Amino acid sequence: MTACIFCDIVDGSAPASRVYENDTVVAFLDIRPLARGHTLVVPRTHASGIADLDPVSADAVFTAGRKIAAAMRQSSIAADGVNLLVNDGRAAMQTVFHHHMHVVPRWSGDKLKFAAQLLTRRPHELEATAAVLREALAQD
Amino acid sequence: MTACIFCDIVDGSAPASRVYENDTVVAFLDIRPLARGHTLVVPRTHASGIADLDPVSADAVFTAGRKIAAAMRQSSIAADGVNLLVNDGRAAMQTVFHHHMHVVPRWSGDKLKFAAQLLTRRPHELEATAAVLREALAQD
Ligand SMILES: [Zn+2]
Ligand SMILES: [Zn+2]
Repeated sequence: MTACIFCDIVDGSAPASRVYENDTVVAFLDIRPLARGHTLVVPRTHASGIADLDPVSADAVFTAGRKIAAAMRQSSIAADGVNLLVNDGRAAMQTVFHHHMHVVPRWSGDKLKFAAQLLTRRPHELEATAAVLREALAQD
Repeated sequence: MTACIFCDIVDGSAPASRVYENDTVVAFLDIRPLARGHTLVVPRTHASGIADLDPVSADAVFTAGRKIAAAMRQSSIAADGVNLLVNDGRAAMQTVFHHHMHVVPRWSGDKLKFAAQLLTRRPHELEATAAVLREALAQD
């Protein structure tokens, strides 16, 4: 175990419901999701934020985020829309200081529920949800 | 004028406070900013969202977003953090259907103000703010 929970997830020493990975990034479900399927994409190489992130990793995070967004729409998650969000810095609500992109599925009319979830974030069957996204992404 | 306000801004037929541009993207201040300096990055080529966006434009939007985030921290905007956000689809709060990334400067302790701005978005001296960011970006 290192001092960074996302480094631990990347190297497999901490558990996570993985949905996608390649040579540069790992994507897994947020354990306090804003919505079912809420995924985090992280570079394998530790970088606290945008300022110390190498450009190849930065692009790979965003590319994976777009793939996952497509999978959220096309799979049985059946998202009507997706938010892709990077919070860079504590003032921007970053809480884990290993760069990451949030990919959050949205459904028409979920606005109030989404706001409520900001207050009551809780798991939604993480492994079953990860399996749905993994399957959609494997069909690329 | 076309049916798309962002295409009009890209081709110069609609006004905007530009902060950055290159062959692939144009970035300008949001006229209803969540914070002073709130910038939108758009691809020059029209695409309604991620699904119909070419990969080169998609990457260029994110690359420009990262540059602008750095400028927000390093310039007199003096952001302590930055949110980078793509709302893809009406269900995800996309309101203009020409793909764009929001780049929103944040300051320590602005959380309540930020929430209030969600309700009362208004301009903050757009041209002066754009000039600050343009100058920081020109020093790359
Ligand atoms: Zn780390
Ligand atoms: Zn357009």
